[in-house]
Amino acid sequence: MSENPLHLLMNPKSIATAGAGNNLMKMGAIQAMNLLTSGYPGTYYPIHPKEKTVLGHRAYSSPAELPEAPDLAFIIVPTEQVAPVLDEFGKIGTRRAVIVTAGFRETGETGKALEEEMSAVAGRHGIRFLGPNRVGIINTQVSVNTTVGPHGSGPGSLGLASQSGTYVTQTLPYLVRKGIRFSKAISLGNEANINIVDALEYLGEDEDTKAIILYIEGIREGRRFIETARRITPRKAVLALYVGGSEAGARSGMSHTGAMAGPDYLYDGIFKQAGIIRVQTIEELYAHGWAFATQPPMKGNRVGIVTNSGGPGTSMSHAANTAGLDLPRFSDTLQREIKKMIPGHASSSNPVDLTFHLNMKTLSTDIPEMIMKSGEVDGLIIHGVIDFLEEVNPGLKKYLEVSPIKDMAKQLLVDLSEAATLPGTHGKPMLISSFFDRRDSYVAFYQDHDIPVFDGPEKAAMAMADLYQYHKIRQRKTSAMPGLPVLSKEAADLIASAMKKGQKGLDEHEGKKILSAYGIPVTRERLTATEAGAVSAAHEIGFPVALKACSWEIMHKTGKGLIRLGLKEEEEVSGAFRSIRQAAGGDIPVLVQEMVSGSREFVMGMTRFPGFGPVLLFGLGGIFAEALKDTAFCSAPLSLGEAEEMIRDIRADKMLEEFRGMPAVDTPAMADIMQTLGFIAVLHPEIAEMDLNPLIISGSRPVVADALIIVKD
Amino acid sequence: MSENPLHLLMNPKSIATAGAGNNLMKMGAIQAMNLLTSGYPGTYYPIHPKEKTVLGHRAYSSPAELPEAPDLAFIIVPTEQVAPVLDEFGKIGTRRAVIVTAGFRETGETGKALEEEMSAVAGRHGIRFLGPNRVGIINTQVSVNTTVGPHGSGPGSLGLASQSGTYVTQTLPYLVRKGIRFSKAISLGNEANINIVDALEYLGEDEDTKAIILYIEGIREGRRFIETARRITPRKAVLALYVGGSEAGARSGMSHTGAMAGPDYLYDGIFKQAGIIRVQTIEELYAHGWAFATQPPMKGNRVGIVTNSGGPGTSMSHAANTAGLDLPRFSDTLQREIKKMIPGHASSSNPVDLTFHLNMKTLSTDIPEMIMKSGEVDGLIIHGVIDFLEEVNPGLKKYLEVSPIKDMAKQLLVDLSEAATLPGTHGKPMLISSFFDRRDSYVAFYQDHDIPVFDGPEKAAMAMADLYQYHKIRQRKTSAMPGLPVLSKEAADLIASAMKKGQKGLDEHEGKKILSAYGIPVTRERLTATEAGAVSAAHEIGFPVALKACSWEIMHKTGKGLIRLGLKEEEEVSGAFRSIRQAAGGDIPVLVQEMVSGSREFVMGMTRFPGFGPVLLFGLGGIFAEALKDTAFCSAPLSLGEAEEMIRDIRADKMLEEFRGMPAVDTPAMADIMQTLGFIAVLHPEIAEMDLNPLIISGSRPVVADALIIVKD
Repeated sequence: MSENPLHLLMNPKSIATAGAGNNLMKMGAIQAMNLLTSGYPGTYYPIHPKEKTVLGHRAYSSPAELPEAPDLAFIIVPTEQVAPVLDEFGKIGTRRAVIVTAGFRETGETGKALEEEMSAVAGRHGIRFLGPNRVGIINTQVSVNTTVGPHGSGPGSLGLASQSGTYVTQTLPYLVRKGIRFSKAISLGNEANINIVDALEYLGEDEDTKAIILYIEGIREGRRFIETARRITPRKAVLALYVGGSEAGARSGMSHTGAMAGPDYLYDGIFKQAGIIRVQTIEELYAHGWAFATQPPMKGNRVGIVTNSGGPGTSMSHAANTAGLDLPRFSDTLQREIKKMIPGHASSSNPVDLTFHLNMKTLSTDIPEMIMKSGEVDGLIIHGVIDFLEEVNPGLKKYLEVSPIKDMAKQLLVDLSEAATLPGTHGKPMLISSFFDRRDSYVAFYQDHDIPVFDGPEKAAMAMADLYQYHKIRQRKTSAMPGLPVLSKEAADLIASAMKKGQKGLDEHEGKKILSAYGIPVTRERLTATEAGAVSAAHEIGFPVALKACSWEIMHKTGKGLIRLGLKEEEEVSGAFRSIRQAAGGDIPVLVQEMVSGSREFVMGMTRFPGFGPVLLFGLGGIFAEALKDTAFCSAPLSLGEAEEMIRDIRADKMLEEFRGMPAVDTPAMADIMQTLGFIAVLHPEIAEMDLNPLIISGSRPVVADALIIVKD
Repeated sequence: MSENPLHLLMNPKSIATAGAGNNLMKMGAIQAMNLLTSGYPGTYYPIHPKEKTVLGHRAYSSPAELPEAPDLAFIIVPTEQVAPVLDEFGKIGTRRAVIVTAGFRETGETGKALEEEMSAVAGRHGIRFLGPNRVGIINTQVSVNTTVGPHGSGPGSLGLASQSGTYVTQTLPYLVRKGIRFSKAISLGNEANINIVDALEYLGEDEDTKAIILYIEGIREGRRFIETARRITPRKAVLALYVGGSEAGARSGMSHTGAMAGPDYLYDGIFKQAGIIRVQTIEELYAHGWAFATQPPMKGNRVGIVTNSGGPGTSMSHAANTAGLDLPRFSDTLQREIKKMIPGHASSSNPVDLTFHLNMKTLSTDIPEMIMKSGEVDGLIIHGVIDFLEEVNPGLKKYLEVSPIKDMAKQLLVDLSEAATLPGTHGKPMLISSFFDRRDSYVAFYQDHDIPVFDGPEKAAMAMADLYQYHKIRQRKTSAMPGLPVLSKEAADLIASAMKKGQKGLDEHEGKKILSAYGIPVTRERLTATEAGAVSAAHEIGFPVALKACSWEIMHKTGKGLIRLGLKEEEEVSGAFRSIRQAAGGDIPVLVQEMVSGSREFVMGMTRFPGFGPVLLFGLGGIFAEALKDTAFCSAPLSLGEAEEMIRDIRADKMLEEFRGMPAVDTPAMADIMQTLGFIAVLHPEIAEMDLNPLIISGSRPVVADALIIVKD
């Protein structure tokens, strides 16, 4: 594997800007200025055609004049000048660039041509670049910041790759308030060269990055994305927000960065396949990512909750429980210990509710430590650590003279240093819920000591649920990706012959021959052109049988009189043969097929998405399939482990188990079919789509009862 | 209807406290103090056994000594003293109380007895009270605030009823930061007297309250709750957060206020029935409630989005679209107008993306006004109005001398007065998304002028989706609740006779007779005890038939050889009769039944929940029902409109329409059955449960093919 282009790009010893001047109404100038004010420690060279100095630094009129080839060219010139400037940098030996200029592919055909020209120049010089279109990078470790604002409160451990510049710039003050700190943040722009997969790979290798978050509008190298993520996710959590899966989201993304979006269900499937945790909002992306970046991994689903107010305790318990976490009742031993520290009417079970109680040490440290030590939970959430006098009721201070409020203050003001060590000491995550912000000294302390604070009880619970989800991801069996099977000449010939005849697809019988050539179980069947042949085939196969019209031109047979099921004797077969011929209005071949009996029906399918290659579908079949849309998706080829996870990913997964007197479905056999379908798609790129519907479960064994294969135009 | 007890309780001209002293370590004292510091304008009387003055006011040693009967008694004495003190207040004529003291039902049997004693005292004097258990009230219009903190930033239009005190107290500073202002807020505690339904009713009548939010751990008067809400929701939005529906949520609520929770699906159903919008977090409860309290109603599903950064624009578009809102492409006319104001490469469609653009007037006022005027949207979201110099990059100010930054400042600093009038002028909601908080002067301005600000783009989109959901609620046809049908003597006799015989339920045939007595369509069938009888019944009914063992003791027939379907001729019937008898091991009666053919199967059922009375279920039937859990719930009795909405509330609602060659289901007939089932439950309180499974759709007509009726013990 060659070195990731971002290693050098994110750690340049020297940077030259082209296009940044002294006019701070221009974003380029703001970004260059920000680089300087953020304390960039390397050498800075402004290139400017007219100015002698830019932002206080000696300016050069062109790259050729520079005393050295800068590690990084930072380009903010007008759109049509980008390629020439890049060429100049290439000539002096610069091999990395950040192109901020907009007006390329996202604006239409002219822009697209300019983008291609720029890419060609970069290709000639071996330049790898970020952008174009309003990008910026932040490396908090070495103070590289080319965004429009200060990067906030120091180095952190969260890595971001974003297809929107906003989430690397405009949100910086927001992140300061939330106490969230980046290790590296990369905004990708139009991805004409370096793309989000490169960024993911880089962050995966970066030692300062403990967790990775991705804002995605569309992925170009889908298959590489999955493979890269699967290498990272067993050791580092990756979270993603994908917003291109709706019509409006796709349209907006397209006009924004020219991103090529795919349907939501596809991304849902590939995120699962890759072990990526999907979130629904930018707030969750940052906040859950920060929990992963700072907390020890959660090793089970048991969560403990400690609070001094019932409402938030109940809200958190409900949210955690609903999200699949368990709130075990604490053991009698533990409850006895806890009871010593809380009022008589307070609850020691779980959640522990101290009720109105102002001793912040009990709440923040003593009881949490007892619970962590007990081994009865895998993670802890605390709500209610508040600087009451400052935040809830500053008015109380007036009464300092008339009451023992000094004692109160003593109880209220505690040192959280010990509390902040609990996650590290006990190897369990701890999250804080508080309705207060950094102006509360406790919130600030937690934030500054890498304990995530959530401004709503349910939010802390949902983040904990994601920590648990990652535990399950890490527990996944990694099953090896097997090599491809040998290409079947019979299958290849069938496809070639159909295409040669100008067919758009294969008929059911041919389709099944292809599947069968790769070992997929299909119905026993015989094709016939005569009534006598149908009867003899039925005898050979054994009654009851099904008769179907068989032609590639008939893609959907139901409801047209072209299919007759459950024929029990010769006369029924003869009658069905004649009636199908009549319905078809011609001498159509007829397929005589065994009747597979089974009440459980599923569907499998394959289609292709640009960038992703073959994508497999698994879903509930039968007449309800359409109404229920219970499906799962995965990119192919896949391992048997991935295939089995995918099969279990439908809502009606109960139907795969022993179910109303039926035996459990042979899911390894199902996974094998799924995997084989992926192999077929890879071996035969001429196949555009496959549709196995239904796949009937006969006893526990899956059998393909109908199949449709479409070839490429 | 008698006057709601909260009218006087929330507007007392005089308040006496019992138990509040000068020790501000005690919550009672803090609350009393807070009442005074919040500017309560009425008369205040502290009752204290020893102190001469309390918090600077002359103290009285008992209620009997007071110069008048205060409108409201505010009681914070130890648990066992509450009833005696309440009695003293009762004797002098006080009729309203707030009981803050905890230690009652939520702590166990002793506490429960004390609570009952207190209620008995109140009953004798006709006292209506709030609590017990840590309650507080806020009336911002007359400055009544008995919570532990200041109520924030002045009177507002959002009414809250909460079963947790925290959400009326601890969150007050949070609400100040969010710019959210209460009209009234009521914390309900244990609800020994006044409960959340009274509070809902009161807020429904309160003119200062424009929208109502409810935090619910469990509802006692379920049926009254639904009826009250249905009266309110056509003219005032009601939002609810329910947290008692999981095992952990129910347990925590129980230990917190002794609340009696019910399953999540029940509350989901009754919220829909009542026209209540359900939210999932306390943040949504407040924030969406505030959108309803301040914005004009949304009158369609078209939303416009204006932004200056692509990422948030795309995030909002995706979230809005996914939540069911439409983002129409703007007309050419409107786009031409917009294009005049934005950079050439910027998008004028929808979302409008000004791209990096610092003219805040264009973003905040000019383009929003064009869009509002156009009539092409029903609501608008804006992201990006930021005081850039103050918030994003304060460092830029240093460069004031070296750049035309003053011009920039001019563009940046605009007056939002006109922007704030847009929703009122055009009668359409406008929501703001901003990553900045009140320290940004624009955010503060919006908040102070009743324009809701959300700190994440998706959050604004989700709030808009709720505004649209309320539009649909207001569009619902209000169908009248018909009177009950006449009680069927036949049905009553069947039930009485079964109960007399000690049966736990009725057999299938008897059950169907009851349904049939009320006009519910059931299978044609005959009960027989002989083989010959079975054959003759089959002839009478017409082949094919089904044979079933028929006894109240057999509740589930499948898989036991007690049911035989599709019998086409005499011999099959005879054989089936014998084999059923054999499987049953005795002379069991056998039901001969018409075969109803139809691929669509549903289930209907009735069960009873404490406080709610009869609750009806509708769901997908057939063998997969269990795996799919596609169900809807509703409280009975119900109108035909409610019944039809409930039927359409399943995920597989497509199956009710024309579906794979089958005609549309006769949903009015289905609604009629649903309604009748509710009537039966009301007329026959001896029935504990009913289970109609399956209800087969034959053509378009529903027929009950099996029924189980369980009677009460």
